[in-house]
Amino acid sequence: MSPKITGELLRQLRHAMRNCKYFSEPIQAYIVPSGDAHQSEYIAPCDCRREFICGFNGSAGTAIVTEQHAAMWTDGRYFLQASQQMDNNWTLMKMGLKETPSQEDWLISILPENSRVGVDPWIIAADQWKNMSKALISAGHSLVAVQDNLIDAVWADRPERPSTQLRTLGLEYTGISWQDKINTLRAKMTERKITWFVATALDEIAWLFNLRGADIEYNPVFFAYTIVGMNTIRLFVDLKRLSDPALRAHLQLDSPSKPELSIQTFPYESVYTELQAICAALGPKDKVWICDKASCALTQVIPKSHRTPIPYTPLCLSKAVKNTTEIQGMKMAHIKDAVALCELFAWLEKEIPKGIVTEISAADKAEELRSQQKDFVGLSFPTISSVGPNGAIIHYRPLPETNRTLTTNEVYLIDSGAQYIDGTTDVTRTVHFGTPSAFEKECFTYVLKGHIAVSAAIFPNGTKGHLLDSFARAALWESGLDYLHGTGHGVGCFLNVHEGPCGISYKTFADEPLEAGMIVSDEPGYYEDGSFGIRIENVVLVVPAQPKYNYRNRGSLTFEALTLVPIQVKMMNTELLTQKERDWVNEYHRKCREVVGAELERQGRKEGLEWLIRETQPIV
Amino acid sequence: MSPKITGELLRQLRHAMRNCKYFSEPIQAYIVPSGDAHQSEYIAPCDCRREFICGFNGSAGTAIVTEQHAAMWTDGRYFLQASQQMDNNWTLMKMGLKETPSQEDWLISILPENSRVGVDPWIIAADQWKNMSKALISAGHSLVAVQDNLIDAVWADRPERPSTQLRTLGLEYTGISWQDKINTLRAKMTERKITWFVATALDEIAWLFNLRGADIEYNPVFFAYTIVGMNTIRLFVDLKRLSDPALRAHLQLDSPSKPELSIQTFPYESVYTELQAICAALGPKDKVWICDKASCALTQVIPKSHRTPIPYTPLCLSKAVKNTTEIQGMKMAHIKDAVALCELFAWLEKEIPKGIVTEISAADKAEELRSQQKDFVGLSFPTISSVGPNGAIIHYRPLPETNRTLTTNEVYLIDSGAQYIDGTTDVTRTVHFGTPSAFEKECFTYVLKGHIAVSAAIFPNGTKGHLLDSFARAALWESGLDYLHGTGHGVGCFLNVHEGPCGISYKTFADEPLEAGMIVSDEPGYYEDGSFGIRIENVVLVVPAQPKYNYRNRGSLTFEALTLVPIQVKMMNTELLTQKERDWVNEYHRKCREVVGAELERQGRKEGLEWLIRETQPIV
Repeated sequence: MSPKITGELLRQLRHAMRNCKYFSEPIQAYIVPSGDAHQSEYIAPCDCRREFICGFNGSAGTAIVTEQHAAMWTDGRYFLQASQQMDNNWTLMKMGLKETPSQEDWLISILPENSRVGVDPWIIAADQWKNMSKALISAGHSLVAVQDNLIDAVWADRPERPSTQLRTLGLEYTGISWQDKINTLRAKMTERKITWFVATALDEIAWLFNLRGADIEYNPVFFAYTIVGMNTIRLFVDLKRLSDPALRAHLQLDSPSKPELSIQTFPYESVYTELQAICAALGPKDKVWICDKASCALTQVIPKSHRTPIPYTPLCLSKAVKNTTEIQGMKMAHIKDAVALCELFAWLEKEIPKGIVTEISAADKAEELRSQQKDFVGLSFPTISSVGPNGAIIHYRPLPETNRTLTTNEVYLIDSGAQYIDGTTDVTRTVHFGTPSAFEKECFTYVLKGHIAVSAAIFPNGTKGHLLDSFARAALWESGLDYLHGTGHGVGCFLNVHEGPCGISYKTFADEPLEAGMIVSDEPGYYEDGSFGIRIENVVLVVPAQPKYNYRNRGSLTFEALTLVPIQVKMMNTELLTQKERDWVNEYHRKCREVVGAELERQGRKEGLEWLIRETQPIV
Repeated sequence: MSPKITGELLRQLRHAMRNCKYFSEPIQAYIVPSGDAHQSEYIAPCDCRREFICGFNGSAGTAIVTEQHAAMWTDGRYFLQASQQMDNNWTLMKMGLKETPSQEDWLISILPENSRVGVDPWIIAADQWKNMSKALISAGHSLVAVQDNLIDAVWADRPERPSTQLRTLGLEYTGISWQDKINTLRAKMTERKITWFVATALDEIAWLFNLRGADIEYNPVFFAYTIVGMNTIRLFVDLKRLSDPALRAHLQLDSPSKPELSIQTFPYESVYTELQAICAALGPKDKVWICDKASCALTQVIPKSHRTPIPYTPLCLSKAVKNTTEIQGMKMAHIKDAVALCELFAWLEKEIPKGIVTEISAADKAEELRSQQKDFVGLSFPTISSVGPNGAIIHYRPLPETNRTLTTNEVYLIDSGAQYIDGTTDVTRTVHFGTPSAFEKECFTYVLKGHIAVSAAIFPNGTKGHLLDSFARAALWESGLDYLHGTGHGVGCFLNVHEGPCGISYKTFADEPLEAGMIVSDEPGYYEDGSFGIRIENVVLVVPAQPKYNYRNRGSLTFEALTLVPIQVKMMNTELLTQKERDWVNEYHRKCREVVGAELERQGRKEGLEWLIRETQPIV
C-alpha cells in the first residue's frame, strides 16, 4: 500500500480556505469529517471526501487541515492502515491513547488567536457541532458553517450521487407493513406530545417504508429524507426513482388507503426548504423530533424552542428489536451463510497446499459461494481476508499490493458477511491450515474464552450492553493482553451490518438496554502487530433466559448464536478451557452440525458436509 | 420505626412557598436536596433539611414539595428504610426502577403551566442546577434560586453550625506537607493556564492543609472554603478556631516561610463576597477552576467566560492516589481494626447463646473494642448491625424500636469501620452462629465469587472502575440474582469513608481510571427482602500486577486486600467454588492469620487469636 500524494491537493484546499468566494473572511482550519449528510458510516464514492483529501479509506476518521498542519484522527482498528495510506503531509492522531490530543485541544494548541474553523454543516452532526463550537468559543475561536463544501471545490472528477433502483419488501420479509410502522411512530409521537418527526438516517427510512436500495455499497439503503406529521408523510427522494408501478403500489402513491397514510413525494434536495416551511407554520406548543446525530444544517432549521433532540429515534429503537418474521429470516440467512463458509473452508483446505490461494482469491471464493445461496444480494461489508501479519491490521482489506498467499504456516483470519433478502450476516473465523504455534493457540484460547463469556452470559433484563464488555476481556487481561476495539455492534435485518442503539463496548454508556429480539455481534480479538490477528465473531440474538431464581421479577436474558460455523478446535489449547467452556464448544458444534448439516445435505454439498462433520467432533 | 408526622410541617412549608417575603412571586414547587453548601454526603445536624421535612434519614435522597404533592427520591439501598420513615403525605420514588419518573419528568407531569420551582442555590450543585433548569425551561417552567432556605424558615429549633477543635497532622501521617501540596496544585494550574482555584469540598480542604476537624459525625472535616491563586492562599473558616498556637505554627499564620505560602484567613461566611471581589479584578484571560459539583451559588459568582468547571478537582485526584506514608498508615489501621473484629466475633460466639446480645449491643461492643486500639478517633460511619430480615435493609442502622436479638438461627451482617489517625476502615462480614440454610449458603457463595472476581481481577493500566462492576455480579446473574447498589467506592485516609473520583459501579461512566495507590472497597451483596442480607466487603489497594505478557507496554493492575478479617467458611458452599476461588480464600486466610495473628499476639488478645486461628483453617 503506497500512500496518497496529497501536497498539491492540500495546496488547493488551503487556497480555497483563503478564498472569500466561500465566506466573508478566510478560515484558518477546515474540518473534513467522515460520513455524508445522513451521518452514514459507509458512504457513497461522491461522499468520500476525507479519503480524497488524505488517502485513508477506513470507515471512521476525521481530517483537519490548517495553514501549517494536516492531521487525521482514527481509532485503534485503523492505526496501521492509516499510517500506510497517508503521506508525510499528514499526522496520524491515534484516538484512545492517552497522549493523543482531542481535535478541540489540538486546534486550540496550534491556532493563532481568534481563528475561524470551517466545516460543512451537512456533514457534521449537530451534537459534534455543539461540542466543537463550545470548545472553540471558550478558547476565543469560532466554528463557521461553510455552505459550499471545500473538498468538492477542489475535487475535479467527483462522482455523481447514486440513484439505484428501489426494491419493495413484502410482509413475508418485514413482518410489519409500513403503514403499521407509521401508526406505531405516530402513537409514540402522541405519547410524547410531538407534532413532527424528521428522519435523516438512511437505514431508518429504508426500514420504515419496507424499501431497499443500493446507493451505498454493502448497505441496502437509498438517499432520502422523511418528515412525518400526525396527518402527513413527506418523502424526499430523487423523483425519477418512483416510476416503477410495483413501487408506486407498495407506497400507495396513486391511491392511498387513508388520507393520513398518503405519502407526498418531493425532490431529495428540497428537504431544507420544506422543513423551513413546516417550521414557519409551527404553533407555539409544537415540538419536532430529530436525532441529535442528524446534520447540523437540518437541525438548525428547527427553532431551538421547538426542537426536541433525541439520542436515538423511535425508528431506531423499533428497528433494533426484530419481530418474529425478521428473526426467522435472520436465522435462515445465517444457515445459508454457514453453508457457503463450510464449502469455503473445505475448498481452502484442498487448494492451499497447491500454493495458489491468496487473500484476494479466498475472499472472491467466499463471495462466489455465498452468491450461490438463495436471495443473495451482495456482501454486507468488504471482506477482511488476511494472512499472518496482515491479520493484525484490524480492518484490513486485501489489495493487490498487500495480497499474501495462504500457506500452512500462518494464521488466516476471515471476517465477512452478506446481504440476503431475508437477513444480514457478519462472521469471523480464525484458522490455521498447518500447525499453529503454542502462543497463537494460547491467544486464540483467551479470545475464545472471552467470546464464550459474553455469549453464555446471563444478565438481568434492562442491562446495557457495555456492562458485558469486560467479560470478553477478562481472560486476555489476566495474561496482560487486550484488544483496542469494542466487543460487539447491533446488526440490521437486510440492512446495515452496523446499527444502533445497542452494542457491547467499553466506549459507550448511552447505549440502550438490551432486550429480547435485539441482535448484536460478539467479536473479541487479539492482534500481535507484525505477526498475526485473531478474532472470533458470531452474530447473536438476545433471548429470555430462565435461571434458577428471578430476583424482583425482573427476568433474565442471554444470547443465542445465529452464526453457525465451527470454531477451529486445532487453534484451541483445550487445557486452558474450563469444563463449562468445553461443554459450550461441544454444544455449539452439535448445533452447527445438526442445523447446517441438514442444509448442506439438502443442497447436496458433500465436501462442505464432510468438513462440517470433521470440524464438529466433540472435544474431551 | 414509626414514620415522622409531617402534615403540619408541609402546611407551613407550603405557606412559605406562597409567602412573598422570600421572592417576587410564589413558587409552585420546592426542591430539598440532601447535602450541605459543600455537597457533603454526610452532613451536620443543622444541614439535615431533607430529613427534617420528610423523616427519611438515609445518606442520599431528594425531596420535592408542590402545592398538592410531596415526593422523595432515593436509591435501592434505602427503599425499605424510606418507606418506613415517611408518612402518607410522601410518595417514595424508587430510583433505578424503570417505572420511576425522574424528578424533572415528575415535576413536568404535575405542575400547572408556567410554574416556578424553587431551590436553595447553596445546596444544589451547579451541574444539577443546569440539568434541572434546562428540563424545566424546555417544558415552559423555570427554576428559581431562593436565597432564604425555606426549610430553615419553618425549622424552629434548628441546631447551630458546629465549630470543633482542629487537629494538625504531621508528615509521619500525611507524607507530604501542605506547602508541597500547594506547590503541586499551582504547578497543575500553571500547566492548564488557570489563575484561581476555588475549593469547596470539605475533605479536599482538610487534605490540602493536613488538618482534621470533627464538624460532621464520622467525617473528620471542618467547615471551610479555600481559594488559591498563584501568589495567595485564602482560607475561609470560623476565625475563633485559629487561636491554638500549634495550629497557627502548623499553618505558619504568624511567620510564613515565603510570601506565596502565606495563608490569609477570612470568616467562613465571607467567601461569597471575597470571590466576588476576586472575579471583579479578573484579567480578560484569567480562568477560575471550580468543581462542577460545587454549589450553584458560588459557581455563578464566577462569570461564565472565566469559569472552567471540572468534574474532579486536582486536589480530589491527588488525594485519591495515596502516597507510601498514607498506604503504610492505612495498612496499620486495618490491622488494628481486624484485631478488634476478631475479638468481637470471639465475644459474640460466646455471648449469643445466652440470648442477650442485640444488634445495638453488638455494635456498641465493636466500637468499644475498636476504641481500645491506638490512635482511634471514632467510627467512620454508623455501624450497620443487622440480624435476619433487618439485613435486607441495605443501609440499616439499629434503633431501639427495630433492635433484634442475635441468635444461632439467623444470618448476622455487620458493616462497620473506624477513623484512626493513621487511616480509615470499612469492612462488612456476614456470619451465622448456628447452621445457615442451603439457600443462605448458596447466595453467600455467589456473593463471595463476585467479591473474589473483583479482588483477583487483573486489568490494564487506565481501566476505569466501572468496567469491573459486572465481574462482581456474574455469579449472581447466572442464577437470576443481583443487588441494587454499586460494588465499591473510594476510601479516604483518615478522611471520608466515601470519596471520589474512583469507584466500581455500573452507575458511573465519568469515574477516573484506576491507578496504583488508589484505595476502593469491594462489596457485592445479596438481599432477600424479609429474610436476610449478605455483603462481603474488603477495602483494597490498587497495586501493579505482573502477568505473563505486557500488551503495548501498558502495564497491568490488580488489588491487594487491606482488610484482613476472615470470611466465614461455614457460610460457603465450597462445592460451588472453583479451585482458583478456593485457593484465593486459603491464601487470604493465610495472610489474615499471619499479619493479624502477630498483632493479636503482641496485644495479648488470646480469645481473638484462638478465633482467628480456627476461622482461617484452609478449605479443601
